[in-house]
Amino acid sequence: MLQQLLLPEIRELIADGDEATLRETLDQWLPVEVAGLLNKLSDEEDLAVMRLLRGPQRARIFEYLDRWSQQKLVRDLPGDVVGPLLSDMADDDRTRLLESLSEDERDRSLARLSEEQRHLAELLLDFPADSVGRLMTPHFVCVRPHWTIEHVLDHIRQHGQDSETLNVVYVVDDDHRLIDDLRIRQLLLANPHRRLDELMDSQYVALKATDEKRSAVEIFRRYDRTALPVVDDNERLLGIVTIDDVIDIAEEAATQDMQKLGGLEALELSYSATPLPTLIRKRGVWLIVLFLGEMLTATAMGYFEAEIAKAVVLALFVPLIISSGGNSGSQAATLIVRALALGEIQLRDWFTVLKRELMSGLALGLVLGMIGFLRIALWSAFSTLYGPHWLLVGVAVGVSLVGIVLWGCLAGAMIPFGLKRAGLDPATSSAPFVATFVDVTGLVIYFSVALIVLRGTML
Amino acid sequence: MLQQLLLPEIRELIADGDEATLRETLDQWLPVEVAGLLNKLSDEEDLAVMRLLRGPQRARIFEYLDRWSQQKLVRDLPGDVVGPLLSDMADDDRTRLLESLSEDERDRSLARLSEEQRHLAELLLDFPADSVGRLMTPHFVCVRPHWTIEHVLDHIRQHGQDSETLNVVYVVDDDHRLIDDLRIRQLLLANPHRRLDELMDSQYVALKATDEKRSAVEIFRRYDRTALPVVDDNERLLGIVTIDDVIDIAEEAATQDMQKLGGLEALELSYSATPLPTLIRKRGVWLIVLFLGEMLTATAMGYFEAEIAKAVVLALFVPLIISSGGNSGSQAATLIVRALALGEIQLRDWFTVLKRELMSGLALGLVLGMIGFLRIALWSAFSTLYGPHWLLVGVAVGVSLVGIVLWGCLAGAMIPFGLKRAGLDPATSSAPFVATFVDVTGLVIYFSVALIVLRGTML
Repeated sequence: MLQQLLLPEIRELIADGDEATLRETLDQWLPVEVAGLLNKLSDEEDLAVMRLLRGPQRARIFEYLDRWSQQKLVRDLPGDVVGPLLSDMADDDRTRLLESLSEDERDRSLARLSEEQRHLAELLLDFPADSVGRLMTPHFVCVRPHWTIEHVLDHIRQHGQDSETLNVVYVVDDDHRLIDDLRIRQLLLANPHRRLDELMDSQYVALKATDEKRSAVEIFRRYDRTALPVVDDNERLLGIVTIDDVIDIAEEAATQDMQKLGGLEALELSYSATPLPTLIRKRGVWLIVLFLGEMLTATAMGYFEAEIAKAVVLALFVPLIISSGGNSGSQAATLIVRALALGEIQLRDWFTVLKRELMSGLALGLVLGMIGFLRIALWSAFSTLYGPHWLLVGVAVGVSLVGIVLWGCLAGAMIPFGLKRAGLDPATSSAPFVATFVDVTGLVIYFSVALIVLRGTML
Repeated sequence: MLQQLLLPEIRELIADGDEATLRETLDQWLPVEVAGLLNKLSDEEDLAVMRLLRGPQRARIFEYLDRWSQQKLVRDLPGDVVGPLLSDMADDDRTRLLESLSEDERDRSLARLSEEQRHLAELLLDFPADSVGRLMTPHFVCVRPHWTIEHVLDHIRQHGQDSETLNVVYVVDDDHRLIDDLRIRQLLLANPHRRLDELMDSQYVALKATDEKRSAVEIFRRYDRTALPVVDDNERLLGIVTIDDVIDIAEEAATQDMQKLGGLEALELSYSATPLPTLIRKRGVWLIVLFLGEMLTATAMGYFEAEIAKAVVLALFVPLIISSGGNSGSQAATLIVRALALGEIQLRDWFTVLKRELMSGLALGLVLGMIGFLRIALWSAFSTLYGPHWLLVGVAVGVSLVGIVLWGCLAGAMIPFGLKRAGLDPATSSAPFVATFVDVTGLVIYFSVALIVLRGTML
């Protein structure tokens, strides 16, 4: 928390234009700490600091800023600072920044790169937005099977500087096809005079550049690697993906699923960084969709208006009943969406899930139905709120609850499967969406049961 | 998918007891692939395979199994297999298995370890269940500042075999206090004759053994490391944590938050691995709590029974109105809970959030209120469903919606802050919990507004 203590002093140095002292101070900080400082300073102060920093240090700091601040700086910094800055960035971080810019700004930024780098940046941007290709860096250590370990270590010392990681080296054949990956530990532990092909087991795991980003998370988790190679359709080595990007993807994916489950469009930026109009729009769209859906409840209840007029007591339990369906549906949807996202269950498991939800829904419905019935019986022992036919009302409420909770569990579990089967994102079967569906059908179940149970007495 | 194709053949080999061929086949597989095979075989077949595997290979495979299968095997395998198996496991994986066993089984397992390993296992288990200490392994490469790089590489070759990672080495002083960490890339890129203290910048990031596991995720993300050192209160180096464990913690934490937001107790195992009774209990507890809470809606509506009897039309809009409050509350709660979990917002930001939610709630409420009013006006142009006073009914519904949506946003955003302030987990302010709260208060808002607007006409 050094930075917080020094904040006023830093501000003063910037205001005084004392660049020498400022540079000397910031040189002693970690890049991530300077980035934290920039988050606390004003936009003008940020510009002043970025202008006085130099080369790779500036790029490292810049990489730690959020996309929002990066975009602002790219717009506001002079061209002779932006050019070197973009050049010094890691390829994967640069791709992520470029893909977030408007087309105009992107073209202007690309024009500031050297021809070689521009070519590379365009190549990476050519991969689909959600693909592993966008996470890739083409800087890695690439070796040949007949080399000795000593040779490899020499090679690393001479050419490894730009490599994103030195924790793994990649063995390729004459056609640049991947034939194995070796962890640096294997090289460090073995006799330096041994040849690589003596250590190789030709067992490696590779990603395809066109794979979805999310699938990379699962593969990293399964194989416990810190970096994975990326190959094209001919097994030719294109680049590598490192785990620090993957952990970000995992958190981002979980956040977006959570937001969809919470009934809004997933945000692209953090809650605080999202401009208020965007925040309202992302929430408003779904809120309106759900509202229009829920209008069907008014329609459904309209059909039973005569019954409600005859037995007002029925209306009292409407919120209790539909919310129970909604809650059980929300539970089921959450469980299934997350299990599908983590790959714990697959599409083909739908029938097993259906059976489990049938059992769960019945058990939970019976418990809630019983509690509902008891509550009505208990109250009726002391008051006349529920009228002379309280026993029948209790039966109607209890039986409806069994049906509605069961229905909630089944709908909540099966809708995500249906969406996935149709090639859509299961998370969009957000809990409120399931709840809306269950609310409308739940009302129909409730009033139909009431009609049967209460016919001839109250109705 | 080799394993799936070979499954019948593997089964046959097990049934025939052809251990030699079986061992030869499995030797060519990656440990994670054999683990995948074990998941598909029966319990008896698993036992047969585990018995025939040997030493470190068996331990690596075992580490890839889920906790559920590990527990079963520890119970069922003979003692002379379990002992070496536990000894060969990585310390952090062993800790995770031991902490999931019953006290009895844990004591029996500990007794099968060598004295040194038992001592170590007990030491790690002494750290709180949710602390970084439980993720730690004490096997790392520890070097001194005056050593040359060449000396370090020799040291690694001789003593690095057991180290969990060789991607980072840790520099300590005479009192085993951490003074720096050096990435292996720094050593590989520098002249082998240089001394470590020439490379050191004394800038390192360390975890405390008593830190919460979840906080480790954030630090790994911020500093982009593959391993971090763990120190005690005196900065003495205790062990290291590697990123492969941290990515699991991140996914687990997100899953548990999601489940809490979905309105159930977080599961400890995956959906499929959770026994049905546990699944029903974890859901039932919250479903009952929410049901008891929702009973207040029946009570609230009971107070307005006379009004409903006079103006049945009011009842028709109850589901529409309370679900709008619930949906807006669920959106706000999801956004805030996740932003708090990722550290994007802090407790001290509550007032900024309050202001944003006030604006969002008003905007969203006005939009829904307007749609609600228009719908009633539109329907009334063609039918008499909403009676002669439809204009007033429309006003009552519209105004209530503004209030309820606003209230939903505020409650959904502030309840998580309140829970966190009280030292509780904000995720337990699950969306359905917020919805229940908003339902009850929403009914009171709705009927109060209706009483004011409709007094003298319908009421």
